[in-house]
Amino acid sequence: MTQNRDADRTPVTVVGLGLMGQALAGAFLRAGHPTTVWNRTAAKADPLIAQGATLADSIGDAVAAGPLVVVCLSDYDTAHKLLDPLGELLDGRTLVNLTSGTSAQARETAEWAARHGGDYLDGVILAVPPGIGTADAIILYSGPRAAFDLYEPVLRSLAEATTYLGGDHSLSALHDMAVLGLMWGVLNGFLQGAALRGAAGADPAAFVPLVRQGIGIVTDWLPGYAQQIAEGTYPALDATLDTHRAAMEHLAHESESRGVNADLPRFLQALADRAVADRAVADRAVADGRGGDGYAAMIEQFRKPSAGRS
Amino acid sequence: MTQNRDADRTPVTVVGLGLMGQALAGAFLRAGHPTTVWNRTAAKADPLIAQGATLADSIGDAVAAGPLVVVCLSDYDTAHKLLDPLGELLDGRTLVNLTSGTSAQARETAEWAARHGGDYLDGVILAVPPGIGTADAIILYSGPRAAFDLYEPVLRSLAEATTYLGGDHSLSALHDMAVLGLMWGVLNGFLQGAALRGAAGADPAAFVPLVRQGIGIVTDWLPGYAQQIAEGTYPALDATLDTHRAAMEHLAHESESRGVNADLPRFLQALADRAVADRAVADRAVADGRGGDGYAAMIEQFRKPSAGRS
Repeated sequence: MTQNRDADRTPVTVVGLGLMGQALAGAFLRAGHPTTVWNRTAAKADPLIAQGATLADSIGDAVAAGPLVVVCLSDYDTAHKLLDPLGELLDGRTLVNLTSGTSAQARETAEWAARHGGDYLDGVILAVPPGIGTADAIILYSGPRAAFDLYEPVLRSLAEATTYLGGDHSLSALHDMAVLGLMWGVLNGFLQGAALRGAAGADPAAFVPLVRQGIGIVTDWLPGYAQQIAEGTYPALDATLDTHRAAMEHLAHESESRGVNADLPRFLQALADRAVADRAVADRAVADGRGGDGYAAMIEQFRKPSAGRS
Repeated sequence: MTQNRDADRTPVTVVGLGLMGQALAGAFLRAGHPTTVWNRTAAKADPLIAQGATLADSIGDAVAAGPLVVVCLSDYDTAHKLLDPLGELLDGRTLVNLTSGTSAQARETAEWAARHGGDYLDGVILAVPPGIGTADAIILYSGPRAAFDLYEPVLRSLAEATTYLGGDHSLSALHDMAVLGLMWGVLNGFLQGAALRGAAGADPAAFVPLVRQGIGIVTDWLPGYAQQIAEGTYPALDATLDTHRAAMEHLAHESESRGVNADLPRFLQALADRAVADRAVADRAVADGRGGDGYAAMIEQFRKPSAGRS
């Protein structure tokens, strides 16, 4: 049985006062937690001190100030440089690391914390700093369930959607990567479209409302896609894979004929072509391949290791 | 000087009563326009007849019924098969084609309409059928300005954002492709993430709220990106290009180590690497390349013709 820490009283420490760290400390203060802060450049703590935070004289004092230490630094190298000398302070404490990093870095840090008797939660913030402490923030955690349960009421001060992913410390970084991949999809799609429109003399800013509209439409398809992926059947919801492929050819051709880069559309097209070909091989009973299925059928291609790997 | 047609009285014809065509005709009826409809399968007109539409006996009668003919069919081949025999009816009429197609198809259809004395507007719908006639719809038009101006009040019944792109008939299809490219970015990003999460045993549905969050954050970056593209300077807004590249390496590595396809992340990474390398060559005064710029600097890569083309 785990006991929840009193959400209103648990002292917390925040190490790292970049924009995000300041937002985290501010949210803890607003929720009534005695909050100790530390930053390499102490001046960044001034607005927080005005709100009631205690500035520690050293990072060691900061870590020693309470049972829950939240770290948000620019990268894991910085985190290790600062925290490695303080291993002995971890015993009996819970370290929550919201620094962005890889699965491997999360696992290594968890092992280091465990060697010193500390609990370790690796976290990923899906929010911009002004969203921290509001319904607009999602923070994902992975690591020991008991540590999450113990501090969940405290961590909920930071994000209404405070979500536990599982015991494997690498799950937060994995989710971070998964969401980032989608964000690059948006950015590259925007840049491809902006280049294409630019070649036709159109103003970049006027593209934004159209993009918002397209994003809104496609985002509303995703629950249906997720359901199909879970069920393993892919009837066309929006358009068939063949229709998508024909439109990809148009985008690639349009890009080429306007003299802008067509590498991304040609790559997408090749990926879709391969998906259809692979599915045709896998299921010869369907004479014309699986082009009549929907785009979610592409998941089968994304699941396969890249060629030359297995 | 163009005169606007009275928004409340202009008779309109809608050819093609798929889900989208039905929505278009319904919006015209709600706005008070005498609306003639035609569809290969006449039964699809029944709900519209109940709302006051007139079902034409033939497509010729439908086109002849009024000055403005809106066509929304499954593809241009279908449109040509139906409309080509009716060229002589076009004289003095305006044909608005909302069928999805390529730039080349739009230009060809414009030439065909011009040969028969008809005005031609090529349009692209950025909306789902239930959004037609509401503030949620965007419809983009290209073709002769005078024809657009004349019928704009009527077309506004279909979409609050009724937008004129320019006289070049290919502009609508170009914008359609540009928005679709971004939609594939979202879908592929989602599928990559879903495959990655699936390899770690996570439920696809639980990915959707995280994706919505990521999409919301990245969408809010786009006005800033558009401004930088317009200005040609790319200070990092969210993260530097080098930070993005490092995270791309993490996604690719994570995908490989989880045994899912890494082709897309490796492709994105190569694109970003090439962008930085090209920028370094273009501007040797910046000793460490341009990795300190933001991701919007990638526009320079997207603007270049693919290798082997110029």
